[in-house]
Amino acid sequence: MRIDIVTILPQLMESPFADSIMKRALEAGHAELHFHNPRDYSRDKHKKVDDYQFGGGAGMVMQVEPLALLLDELKNERDYDEIIYMTPDGERFDQRMANFYSQKENIIIICGHYKGIDERIREHYVTREVSIGDFVISGGELAATVFCDAVIRLIPGVLNDETSALTDSFQDDLLAPPVYTRPAEFRGWKVPDVLLSGNFKKIEEWRHDRALEKTRLRRPDLLEREIENNSEKNAK
Amino acid sequence: MRIDIVTILPQLMESPFADSIMKRALEAGHAELHFHNPRDYSRDKHKKVDDYQFGGGAGMVMQVEPLALLLDELKNERDYDEIIYMTPDGERFDQRMANFYSQKENIIIICGHYKGIDERIREHYVTREVSIGDFVISGGELAATVFCDAVIRLIPGVLNDETSALTDSFQDDLLAPPVYTRPAEFRGWKVPDVLLSGNFKKIEEWRHDRALEKTRLRRPDLLEREIENNSEKNAK
Repeated sequence: MRIDIVTILPQLMESPFADSIMKRALEAGHAELHFHNPRDYSRDKHKKVDDYQFGGGAGMVMQVEPLALLLDELKNERDYDEIIYMTPDGERFDQRMANFYSQKENIIIICGHYKGIDERIREHYVTREVSIGDFVISGGELAATVFCDAVIRLIPGVLNDETSALTDSFQDDLLAPPVYTRPAEFRGWKVPDVLLSGNFKKIEEWRHDRALEKTRLRRPDLLEREIENNSEKNAK
Repeated sequence: MRIDIVTILPQLMESPFADSIMKRALEAGHAELHFHNPRDYSRDKHKKVDDYQFGGGAGMVMQVEPLALLLDELKNERDYDEIIYMTPDGERFDQRMANFYSQKENIIIICGHYKGIDERIREHYVTREVSIGDFVISGGELAATVFCDAVIRLIPGVLNDETSALTDSFQDDLLAPPVYTRPAEFRGWKVPDVLLSGNFKKIEEWRHDRALEKTRLRRPDLLEREIENNSEKNAK
């Protein structure tokens, strides 16, 4: 999978990919990240890429031209499955979307900065607007990093033990059950007996019950979605 | 504001704070980040901090002891407003929560890794579990970075022009209206006339209408929340 990231601050995205799982995934060739800076496409002598917004108001806007030239160049080089703009008013990113994109070949992610990008880029280039949540952060770079991390770790071969991702929260619309490790007792706080029993059927039941209980308590909406999905499946 | 971050991979969080708004905010003393590594509290000769989960299954679990010793030390040094654990099954982070924490003095954020942390830390230390969304990422570091960015930029003085944050999406439960900057025409794509009119009353109306229209289309749930809030206010 190839991800082209459009950003004026590529350096912000360095360290999250320079260690741990992401570093290994990139080194093993499971994914390629390519960074492109709109400044390199600015015809302004100071390489300016932003300007005041029309109509007045605080906050600068990223200009249409450098982005358009950059995106034209990328689109001439290969076909893209999607051109994504990270923005808090986009469609909510979730594990399903991560699964969806982990099977794609080429995507572009545009990171906005300041007050955002000129609307004409959204109208004429962007094919999907994606938000990581109802909050505002300094720029699209962190959002793009979150997106890439969630997607890349689902590419087969990235995690050492593939079952590890399958038992994560959201892969089955249930929150993950509690986990414990040694010691079995610490300051009088004990691990539930069943987990030490060696009875795997009981352990599976206990985990499922705890996952269901936690989901019911914290995220009943996920259970409703699960029921809908099962009805859809049964109807087919 | 002081934020203590508990992580076995502090290097993952370097670059997002080493440039742009976050760098300036930290340099100006609006916020302090302190990193603490559970490995420094491991009594294992290899500085191990994780182990297989009780009951079997894929994925390692972060052990209770190094985290407990680390958190005890921090709690002895000062009072904390909150001890947060970043986890996908936590309470959903949003702009309101960001506003809330931007007014706090001392918080701890625990970043989980592998399959998560031993449940006993969640039971006995953590005061709030926070999720940045319904997806799974490689570790809590990126989630903590998102949290810190959203919170720190709301601390008064961090943004050059404070009105800039006030007109962001979610500060008023409306998505932000489209923004445009020069040139007024590019490849035949024109900026809406009203924005060039100089009539600020009309511009304000246009922006409000576009914000409302976009919110209605994409996030009707935000409008319902807005109506509820107004009823609450009126009832007081």
